[in-house]
Amino acid sequence: MTVDEFFEKSVGEWSSQRSSHNLAWAQFEAITSDITITKKTANDDEVVSLCRQHEIAVEETDVSIAMSWEGESDWDEDEVMEGTAVMSVVKDGPANGRLLRSVGYAETIPAVGKWEMTEDGVFVLHTFYEAAAAEERIWFATPNLRMRVSLIRTSSGNGVVTASFSTEIRKLRP
Amino acid sequence: MTVDEFFEKSVGEWSSQRSSHNLAWAQFEAITSDITITKKTANDDEVVSLCRQHEIAVEETDVSIAMSWEGESDWDEDEVMEGTAVMSVVKDGPANGRLLRSVGYAETIPAVGKWEMTEDGVFVLHTFYEAAAAEERIWFATPNLRMRVSLIRTSSGNGVVTASFSTEIRKLRP
Repeated sequence: MTVDEFFEKSVGEWSSQRSSHNLAWAQFEAITSDITITKKTANDDEVVSLCRQHEIAVEETDVSIAMSWEGESDWDEDEVMEGTAVMSVVKDGPANGRLLRSVGYAETIPAVGKWEMTEDGVFVLHTFYEAAAAEERIWFATPNLRMRVSLIRTSSGNGVVTASFSTEIRKLRP
Repeated sequence: MTVDEFFEKSVGEWSSQRSSHNLAWAQFEAITSDITITKKTANDDEVVSLCRQHEIAVEETDVSIAMSWEGESDWDEDEVMEGTAVMSVVKDGPANGRLLRSVGYAETIPAVGKWEMTEDGVFVLHTFYEAAAAEERIWFATPNLRMRVSLIRTSSGNGVVTASFSTEIRKLRP
């Protein structure tokens, strides 16, 4: 699968179940959320702004998406977790490159990650933040079921602080 | 990583946190368990018996292990889940082959799965049972942290019924 096909297949509305494991305390957190992924054109204001933020020419980007989510955790059912992020793929080779994000995963600051597509169709993303590093592996179990494993490592990259697993089911139109 | 290295690194005692997602009902289950993996020699009685069961010559096996577990689920804290299984690797190529098991994952019957090691060090195992198919992906995030994603598919192989995620931390000796 190419990175373009991967993002093409990711477009849509998803119901997500996420389990997060705090490894030091052996604690579980269960999060349910709704995720919407839409495609963005290179001349979209948010894409232009993202590229400017990262000092990259819009022409260098391959595919861009916006992702928004709204969910709740069993740790605090009164608090709604929501957010939105714009992401642009830059290819440095046929199966690897950079991912620009308006909002990061481990820290809510703009981030640039390094991605690669593995031979068996897993999108692997490494992002280094100021105090942590994130590793995400995303793949399709079926065209309508996306899986995601995310690790937050210490900034040295050795220890893993939390590991989480998401299963995202495509909401089918009636 | 070769399959031999993968099994070598798996030997030890592990504390496991497992989250299981029932996809149809969007339910979460949290399981904690202790797992012990030991190496078995080819002339071990249990390995000989496993090979006989599957009609394979002991000389065809590469590495063999015994795995035992004892744990509990948040669905029923009074019930202890425990079991033991013997597994032998048969190589059909440098990075693929069969895995013989005395007890299966999706069904508690003897099972033969097909495995492959991916270029980025993931042990991928497909097992077909009578009424289901299992797909497991196991890899090391660090030498002391093993991750495992398991899917149970319908026997046709299309739908996914449950997906689970385990983080296994090596118990370090004082």
